[in-house]
Amino acid sequence: VSAGRIGRLSRGPNPVLFELLYEPHFREDRAHLLGHLLSIDAAHVIMLGRCRLIGEETARRLCALHRHIAERLRAGDELFRPEGAHRGLYLVYEQHFIAELGPEVGGASHFARSRNDINAALTRMRLRDEVGALVGRGAELLRALVAQAGAHVETFMSSFTHQQPAQPSSFGHYLAGVAFELERSLALLARSRAAVNVSPMGAGAAGGTAVGIDPAMVARLLGFEGSAANSLDAVASRDFVVHVLSPVAVVGSTLSRLATDMQTWASHAYGFLDWPDDLVSTSSMMPQKRNAYVWENVRGHAADAAGGLVGALMALKGGPFANSVEVSWEATSHLWPALESCHRALTLTTLLIANLRARPEAMRAFLEGADTVMTALADHLVVRHGLAFRTAHQIVSELASARASGAAPGAGEGLAGATCELLAAIAARVAGRPIALDPAELSGALDPVACARAARYGGGPAPESVRGQLASLAERAQALEAQAEGWRRGLDAARAELEGALAELGGRGS
Amino acid sequence: VSAGRIGRLSRGPNPVLFELLYEPHFREDRAHLLGHLLSIDAAHVIMLGRCRLIGEETARRLCALHRHIAERLRAGDELFRPEGAHRGLYLVYEQHFIAELGPEVGGASHFARSRNDINAALTRMRLRDEVGALVGRGAELLRALVAQAGAHVETFMSSFTHQQPAQPSSFGHYLAGVAFELERSLALLARSRAAVNVSPMGAGAAGGTAVGIDPAMVARLLGFEGSAANSLDAVASRDFVVHVLSPVAVVGSTLSRLATDMQTWASHAYGFLDWPDDLVSTSSMMPQKRNAYVWENVRGHAADAAGGLVGALMALKGGPFANSVEVSWEATSHLWPALESCHRALTLTTLLIANLRARPEAMRAFLEGADTVMTALADHLVVRHGLAFRTAHQIVSELASARASGAAPGAGEGLAGATCELLAAIAARVAGRPIALDPAELSGALDPVACARAARYGGGPAPESVRGQLASLAERAQALEAQAEGWRRGLDAARAELEGALAELGGRGS
Amino acid sequence: VSAGRIGRLSRGPNPVLFELLYEPHFREDRAHLLGHLLSIDAAHVIMLGRCRLIGEETARRLCALHRHIAERLRAGDELFRPEGAHRGLYLVYEQHFIAELGPEVGGASHFARSRNDINAALTRMRLRDEVGALVGRGAELLRALVAQAGAHVETFMSSFTHQQPAQPSSFGHYLAGVAFELERSLALLARSRAAVNVSPMGAGAAGGTAVGIDPAMVARLLGFEGSAANSLDAVASRDFVVHVLSPVAVVGSTLSRLATDMQTWASHAYGFLDWPDDLVSTSSMMPQKRNAYVWENVRGHAADAAGGLVGALMALKGGPFANSVEVSWEATSHLWPALESCHRALTLTTLLIANLRARPEAMRAFLEGADTVMTALADHLVVRHGLAFRTAHQIVSELASARASGAAPGAGEGLAGATCELLAAIAARVAGRPIALDPAELSGALDPVACARAARYGGGPAPESVRGQLASLAERAQALEAQAEGWRRGLDAARAELEGALAELGGRGS
Amino acid sequence: VSAGRIGRLSRGPNPVLFELLYEPHFREDRAHLLGHLLSIDAAHVIMLGRCRLIGEETARRLCALHRHIAERLRAGDELFRPEGAHRGLYLVYEQHFIAELGPEVGGASHFARSRNDINAALTRMRLRDEVGALVGRGAELLRALVAQAGAHVETFMSSFTHQQPAQPSSFGHYLAGVAFELERSLALLARSRAAVNVSPMGAGAAGGTAVGIDPAMVARLLGFEGSAANSLDAVASRDFVVHVLSPVAVVGSTLSRLATDMQTWASHAYGFLDWPDDLVSTSSMMPQKRNAYVWENVRGHAADAAGGLVGALMALKGGPFANSVEVSWEATSHLWPALESCHRALTLTTLLIANLRARPEAMRAFLEGADTVMTALADHLVVRHGLAFRTAHQIVSELASARASGAAPGAGEGLAGATCELLAAIAARVAGRPIALDPAELSGALDPVACARAARYGGGPAPESVRGQLASLAERAQALEAQAEGWRRGLDAARAELEGALAELGGRGS
Repeated sequence: VSAGRIGRLSRGPNPVLFELLYEPHFREDRAHLLGHLLSIDAAHVIMLGRCRLIGEETARRLCALHRHIAERLRAGDELFRPEGAHRGLYLVYEQHFIAELGPEVGGASHFARSRNDINAALTRMRLRDEVGALVGRGAELLRALVAQAGAHVETFMSSFTHQQPAQPSSFGHYLAGVAFELERSLALLARSRAAVNVSPMGAGAAGGTAVGIDPAMVARLLGFEGSAANSLDAVASRDFVVHVLSPVAVVGSTLSRLATDMQTWASHAYGFLDWPDDLVSTSSMMPQKRNAYVWENVRGHAADAAGGLVGALMALKGGPFANSVEVSWEATSHLWPALESCHRALTLTTLLIANLRARPEAMRAFLEGADTVMTALADHLVVRHGLAFRTAHQIVSELASARASGAAPGAGEGLAGATCELLAAIAARVAGRPIALDPAELSGALDPVACARAARYGGGPAPESVRGQLASLAERAQALEAQAEGWRRGLDAARAELEGALAELGGRGS
Repeated sequence: VSAGRIGRLSRGPNPVLFELLYEPHFREDRAHLLGHLLSIDAAHVIMLGRCRLIGEETARRLCALHRHIAERLRAGDELFRPEGAHRGLYLVYEQHFIAELGPEVGGASHFARSRNDINAALTRMRLRDEVGALVGRGAELLRALVAQAGAHVETFMSSFTHQQPAQPSSFGHYLAGVAFELERSLALLARSRAAVNVSPMGAGAAGGTAVGIDPAMVARLLGFEGSAANSLDAVASRDFVVHVLSPVAVVGSTLSRLATDMQTWASHAYGFLDWPDDLVSTSSMMPQKRNAYVWENVRGHAADAAGGLVGALMALKGGPFANSVEVSWEATSHLWPALESCHRALTLTTLLIANLRARPEAMRAFLEGADTVMTALADHLVVRHGLAFRTAHQIVSELASARASGAAPGAGEGLAGATCELLAAIAARVAGRPIALDPAELSGALDPVACARAARYGGGPAPESVRGQLASLAERAQALEAQAEGWRRGLDAARAELEGALAELGGRGS
Repeated sequence: VSAGRIGRLSRGPNPVLFELLYEPHFREDRAHLLGHLLSIDAAHVIMLGRCRLIGEETARRLCALHRHIAERLRAGDELFRPEGAHRGLYLVYEQHFIAELGPEVGGASHFARSRNDINAALTRMRLRDEVGALVGRGAELLRALVAQAGAHVETFMSSFTHQQPAQPSSFGHYLAGVAFELERSLALLARSRAAVNVSPMGAGAAGGTAVGIDPAMVARLLGFEGSAANSLDAVASRDFVVHVLSPVAVVGSTLSRLATDMQTWASHAYGFLDWPDDLVSTSSMMPQKRNAYVWENVRGHAADAAGGLVGALMALKGGPFANSVEVSWEATSHLWPALESCHRALTLTTLLIANLRARPEAMRAFLEGADTVMTALADHLVVRHGLAFRTAHQIVSELASARASGAAPGAGEGLAGATCELLAAIAARVAGRPIALDPAELSGALDPVACARAARYGGGPAPESVRGQLASLAERAQALEAQAEGWRRGLDAARAELEGALAELGGRGS
Repeated sequence: VSAGRIGRLSRGPNPVLFELLYEPHFREDRAHLLGHLLSIDAAHVIMLGRCRLIGEETARRLCALHRHIAERLRAGDELFRPEGAHRGLYLVYEQHFIAELGPEVGGASHFARSRNDINAALTRMRLRDEVGALVGRGAELLRALVAQAGAHVETFMSSFTHQQPAQPSSFGHYLAGVAFELERSLALLARSRAAVNVSPMGAGAAGGTAVGIDPAMVARLLGFEGSAANSLDAVASRDFVVHVLSPVAVVGSTLSRLATDMQTWASHAYGFLDWPDDLVSTSSMMPQKRNAYVWENVRGHAADAAGGLVGALMALKGGPFANSVEVSWEATSHLWPALESCHRALTLTTLLIANLRARPEAMRAFLEGADTVMTALADHLVVRHGLAFRTAHQIVSELASARASGAAPGAGEGLAGATCELLAAIAARVAGRPIALDPAELSGALDPVACARAARYGGGPAPESVRGQLASLAERAQALEAQAEGWRRGLDAARAELEGALAELGGRGS
C-alpha cells in the first residue's frame, strides 16, 4: 500500500496530474495546513476513544504517536516528505500512521470522517487565523489614522469635491473620514468570522454517519464555536469565501481612494505632504525625482481582492450543491493571495500614514488662495441679512465670477474695501433691496480658518467635532483589538484542552 | 431663473449633456426618488423652522405647499415635468417652490444642505426599501424550501459528490442544506441595512456647517437610525453598495447551484423531478420537448449581482475620497438592476420550488441501482468485526470493483449468497484473518433506506435529524420576517411623525 | 391555437413567468429585434421557395404578406401587440402569419429552422450594427484627439510620472499617446465583428437538418459573411460576447485614465484646462464652483463594460455546451447596456475634447517652475563632458537636492552664476576631475522648451515627431471609418437583394 | 554607492518596503526576467556603440563583460544575489557592472534609457514567450479534440438542449463543435501578440530623448516587430494585458462547458465516458467511488483568467495616463498566474481528451430510449405528406405526449403497429384530412442513427459533414502551429544577431 494507491484504484496518479496538481497542492498544504491536520486528527481520535468507537489501546497508541510527531516537528525533523508519486497530503499523512503503527491501529482513525469534512475544516482553520491577523492589522492602521488625525485637528486645508476646492476643513477631518469608512469594513470582516468558525467535522463525505460520534466534542477541541447543522451544507458550502473577501475588497477600495489623495497632495502642484527618503524613490533617469510611488503599490494591491472575489464567484457558480474540487480547492484558492495582498496594503499604508510629514503652511496657503469661504459668505447673508439662501447663493456666485475673471480682487485678498462695495451692489440688484454690509464684520467672519473652526454641526471640521469623532474611532479600534484578542485566547484554550486530552489518553498505560 | 441655470453659470447644459445625462437621470430619479426627496425637504424645513433658522411664516408656507403637492400627486397630477433643458430633478424641484412661493420663501429651504448630502440620503432611502423587500422575498423562498423539504424528509435518494452517487440521503436533506447556505446570505444582507440606514443630512457639500442645525431631528423624521459622525464620510462613502451587493451575489451563487441540480434531476437521464406545463417550455422545432428552462434564467439572473459588484468596485476605485459623480451616481447605478435581478431570481425559484413534483420512485430506483451503501458496509465491518476502517475500506473497494466489472452481482441485487461469500473471501485475504459474515444481518443492515434513516449524526439525513434542521430554519425565516416587519413599522412611524409635524407647522395660522 | 400554447403544452405560461420573463423580453425584443426577425423570416422563406421545400404559391403568399407588413410598419401601424399571455416574440410573430394566411400557409415557414438558430442570428445582427456604430463613434473621438493634439504640438508642458513632473513635453504629445492606446482597442473591436457576422441559420435546434436547405443563400441575403460550419457551435457559442466586450472594456480603461488627467489638469492646483459654462457644473451650496464633473461620468460609464464582461463570463461559465437560455439570453443581455455606456462615454469624451480650452501660459509656468530639465542636464554632461551617465546622474541629483532644500536657486531661476559654480563643484567631487562648465551654453541648452523641441528620438515630443505620429493616427482613423463604411454598404446591398427577391416571389401571379 | 541608494536619496529603502516589495519582486524578476534584461542591455550597448554615443573601448569592455556573464550563468554561477537591502533587480544589475568595470565604463550604459522603457520591454518579452507557449499548447488540445472526434464520427448519441435529449447526433460532432469555439479564442490570442511584440525602448521615462539613438536597431536585436511611435504610449500603456487575458478567459469559458458535459456524461446516470484509473480518484470514505474529478480542476483553473482580467482592469482604471507602478507592476502581475492556470487547464484537458474511453453502446441505448426523432418525424410529415411544419409539429407533439404518459408505446419501441395508427388518427384530426402513413416507411426512416447520418445540412452530424469540419479544424490547428513556429524562429534569429554583434564588439581588440 502506498500514498499513491487507495481503494479500488489500480494505479497511482498519472504523472501529469502529479506534477500539475498533487505536487504543488501538497507543498502548499504541508506549508499551511499540516499543523491544522494534526489537530483535527488528534481531536477526532480523542473523540473516537471517548465514544468507545475505537479501542482504548488503539486510542492510546495513536495519541502517543501524535505527541511523538509533535516533538519531532518541534525538533525540526522533516516528516511527511514522500519520495514517489502520491495523492496528496492526507493520504501521505495516513500512510505515515500505518507505517508506524501497522494497519490495524494506524488505519483505525479514518472512521466516520472523510477528506471532505477534513478539507472543509482545514480551510476554515486557516482562514479564521488569517481573518484574525487582518483585523489586527486593520486596527493598527485605524490607530495610525487616528493618531495622525489627532495631530492635525488644527491643520487647516481646503476640502475638495470634483477635485476643486470646496470648503475650509482640516487634514485631521479628512483622515477621520477615511477612518470611518475603513472601520465599517473591518467590523464586517470581523463579523464574517462567525460563519467561518463552525466545524464541519462529522459531516463525512456529505451524509453524516450512523456511527455514534460526538461532533460537538471535536468542534470544541478545535476551537470552533459550533458544528454544522446539515452535513451537505458542511461540505458543499464555501459561501464564506465571498463573505470574507467582500469586506476585504472594500478595504481595498478605501485604501485606493486614500492613496490617490495622498499622492495628489504630495505632488509638486500641491506640496502638502512628504515622506522621508527611505519611503520614496527617485528615477534612474531623472535626477530631480522624489516619487511617493508606494501609494501605487497600495492602489494595485488593494485591487487584488476584487479579482479574487470574481475568481471565487466564478468557481462557485453553477456547480452542483455538493462537495467538489471546484468549490473545496479552486474557489478557496482565491482567498490566500487576496488576503496576503490586503495584509501588505494595510501594512504599507500604516507605514506611510505613520511617517507622513504634513506641510501645514502649504495647505494654509492653498486654502487662502482658493475661494472656499463663499458658502459661508452666503450663509452670512442669510443669517445676518435675512436673505433666502438661493438668493444669497446667486449674489455670491456673481461675486465669485467677478473674482475669477479679475474684475474683483481674488481669493486671499480678503473682502475689505472694493470687494465689499461690489458685493453690496450685486446684493442690492439681485435681492431688490439694499443690504448694509460691514467690511470689518465680513473680514473677521470670513477667514477660512475661522470658518473651519465654526463648522461644528453635521460632523464638520470644527476641532472639537473632530476630536469627538476621533474618540469614537479610538473606541472602535479598541473594540476590534479586543475581539481579535478574544479569538486568540479562545484558540489557545482549545489547544490547551486538546493537548491535555492527548497527554491523558496517550500517556495512559505507558 | 430656470432649472437649467444656476449660480455663476451663464448657460444651461450642453444639449448633448442634457440628452445623455440630465434627461435619463431625471426620468429615473422622478420615478424612484421624488417621494423621498419630498420627505427630505419636508424634514429639513421642519428642522429649520424648529431651530428658528427660517422664519415662522416661511416655514408655514413651505409646509403648506408640501401638503398641497402631496395632495396633487395623490390626485394624479403631473408635477415636476419641465419642458426645456434643466440640470436635474433637484433644481427642477427647487424652481417649482420658487415659482409657487417667490424667491424669498421658495428659495429659503436650501440652507445648510447641499445636493451632496441630499443625494446620499436619497440613495440610502431607496436602498433600505429594496433591501427590506429582498429580505422579505428571500424569507419566502426559505419558507418554500422548508415546506418542500418537510414534505420530502422520507423521500430517499442518493447524495452525490463529483456528480457520482455517494451515500443514501433524502430530498428533504438536500433542500435543507441549500436553505442553510441561503439563510446565511440573507442574514448578512439584513445586517448590511444598518450601515445603509444612517442619515448623511447635515453634512452639506462635505464640510458640515456653522449654522446651528439639528441633524438628529432630520434623521429621526426620515426614519434613519442615526446621523453620520463625519461629514466627509457622509458624502464620500458608498462602501455600502458593495456591502449590500456581496450577499446578493452569494444568494446568486447559491441559486445557481440549486438550479443546476434541479435541472439535472429533471433531465431524462434522472427523471427525479418535474413541473406542470405552465412552468416548462417545449421546442418550436422538437415536438417531444419539455424543458425546465426557467432554471437557466435563474442561473443567469443570479450572476447579475457579480457583474454589478465589479461595476461598483470599478467605479469606487481610485477616485479621491470626496463627493463625486463617479461614486454618488455611477457606483450606485449598479445597485438597482442587480437587486432587481436577484428579486426576480428569488421569485422564480420560489415558484419553481413550491410547484415541483418529485418522483420518489425514480429517486428510489436510482438509489438502489447505485452502490451507495459501500461506506455503511465498511462501517459495519469496523463496528461488527473490529477491523480498522482503512482495512475495511480496502475490502469493500475490492468488492465494489468486482461488482462494477460484472465479476459479482451488482448494486440493487443485495448482498445475499454469492456476494456475501466473495466479500468474506476478500476480507479474509486483506485482513489476514477469517471474518464471519452473516448474510441476513448484512442484507438487513445494508438497505440504503435503512442507512439513510440511521444517519443521525453530524447533520445527516435521518428523518429526525432533518426535522430538527427544518425547525431551526423555520425559526430563522421567522426572524428575518420579523426584522423586515420591524423596519416597515419604523419607517411608518417616522412617516407619521413627519406628516404630523407638517400638518402642525403648515396648518398654523391658516 | 394561441401564442401562449404550443406543441404538447396544455397551458400558457404561468402568470409569474409571463410578468417576469416573457413580457419584458417581448418588449425589448420588439423594440430591437423585430426588423431583424422579419429579414430572417423573409430570407428563409425565399430560400425554402427557391429550394422547392415549400410550394410556389405558399412562398408567394408568405412573401406578399411580408411586403404588406413592411408597408404597415412604415405607416406606423402597431403590429405584433398581443393582448393576453404569450410565449415571446417569435410565437406571436408566427401566430400573426397563421392568423392572416391560415395554418397551411402561415405555418409552413418554420421548417428546417428553430428558435435556437433564429435567436443566435438575431443577436448577431443586432450586435454587428452596434459594433459598427461604436467603431464609428470611436473614430470620431480619434479625430477629435488628433485635431486637438495638432493644435497643441507646440503647447509645451511637463510630462508626469508618479504624479510628479518628469520631462519637458507638449500637450499634443500627451493627446497623441492616449490616441494610440485608444486606436488599438478600436482596431480589435473592429476585428471582433468578423466572428460575429457569421450566420447560424441552418443549424436548427443544434443538429442541422436532413432537409436540403441552402444556408449559404440565407446567409448572403442577411448580409452575413458565411455560415457556421458546425451546427452545435452555431447555437451553443456566445464567445463573441466576451470578444466584443473586452476591447470595449479597454476603451473604458483608456478613457478613465484620460478623464483623470483632464480633471486633474482642470483643477485649481494646475489650471491648465477649462471648458465653457455649458460643459461644467456649479454647486447648489458652494457659489464659487466650476466643476468639470462630466469626466466623472466618463470614468463611471467607462467601467460598465468591465461589469458586463464579468456578467457575461459568469453566465457562460460551466453550463453544458449546448443551446440554453443562460447563454442565448442571459449572457448576451450584458452586451447592450455595456455598449450603450461605452457609446455615451465616447460621445461625452469627444464633446469635451473638442471643446476644451487649454491655457498654454499656465502649462508653461508650471513647466518652468519644476525641475524637468535635470535629465537633459545629465545628458549634457555625458555628451559634452564625457561622463558616464550614472556619474552624471549622481552629480545632477545632488544639484536637484540642493535646489529643493533652498541651498541653491530653484527651478525657473536658470543655471547662471551661482548654480553653475555649485554644479561644477559637485561634478568635480563626484567625477574626480574638474569639469569646465560654460554658463551660457548651459542656460541656452537647458531651456525646457528647447529640450522638448529637441526630443525627437524614441517617439518623443519634438514637434516634427508628434506631427508624424498624428499623421499616422489620422490614417488609422480613416481606415476605421472606411471599414465601418464598408460594413454599412455590405448590409445595404444584402438588404436590397432581399427586398428584390421578396418583390420577385411575392409579386408573382398577382 | 550601493544598489539600495541612488541619486538624491540619502538612504536605502525602509526595511518594511524591502521585505514586502523589493525582495519578493527581486526574486520573481531574477527568476523570470534576468535573461531578458541581459538581452536588452546588450542590445542597447551595441546600439550606443554603433551610434557612437559611447566610446569604442567602453562598448568593447561592456560587451566583453556581457559574454563573460553569459558564460558564468551557463556554468551555474550565482550572480546578482545581493546581500543587503537594495532597490530591485535593475539597480543590482547596474551595480554589478560598475563593480566590475568601474563607474566610468560600468555606469555608461544607462544613457538615453530608463527603468520605465526597460520594464515595459521586459514585460513584453516575457509575455510574448508565454503567449507563444499557450498558443502551442492550445493547438495540441485542438489536435486531440480533432483526433478523438475523428474516432467518433460514427459514435451516435443524443444531442441535448436545456439538458434534455434533442436530436440524434454523434460524439464526434459534439467534440468538433467545442473545437470550433476553442479555435476562435486561440486565433484571437495569437493575434494579440502583435501588439505585445512592439519595442518600447527609446521612450526613456516617457519623453523619448534628444540623444541620437536608433530605437529600430534595438527593436530588431530584441526580436520586436517595430518600435512604439509615441514615447508616452510606450511606457504608460498596458492595454495588452487585457487584450491577452480576454481570449484566455474565453478559453476558460469553453473548457468549463466541455468539462461540465464530460463529467455529466461520465456520471453513473449516463455512463457514456470513462477514464483509466490513473486519471480518476476514489474516496477516502466511500469505497465504490470513481470520480472524474480532474474536470473540476479544469473548471476552476479555467475561471482564473476571469479573476485576473478583473484584477488588471481594476489596476488600470483611473490612474494617470503615465508610467506608474500600478500599471507597470500591479496590472501586469495578474498576467502570470492567469496564464499559468490556463496552461494547466489546457494540459489537463488534452490529457483527458486523449485518454477518454467512450462507451458507444451506452450512448446508443440512451439515444434509442429518448424521443429524439420527433423533429425528423415532423419533417417527414411535411416532405412526404405536404403538411405545414407547424401542423406537423402539433401532430407529433400529441404523439410525444401520449408516449410520455404511457398511452402509446414509448421511445425505443419503434413506430410500427399501434403507434402508426395513433399517429394517423391524430394527424387526421389536427390536419383535417386523412394522412396515409406507411409503417415500414416510417420505421425505416425514423431510426435515430439514420437520422443522424442524414443530417448533412447546416453543419449537422452526418459523418461526411463532420469529416469536412474536422479537416477544416486540422488546417486551423496547423496554421496556429505554423504561427507559433514562426515566432520561435524570429526570436532565434534575433538572438543570433545579438550574440553575433556582442562577439564582434566584445571581441574587438582582445
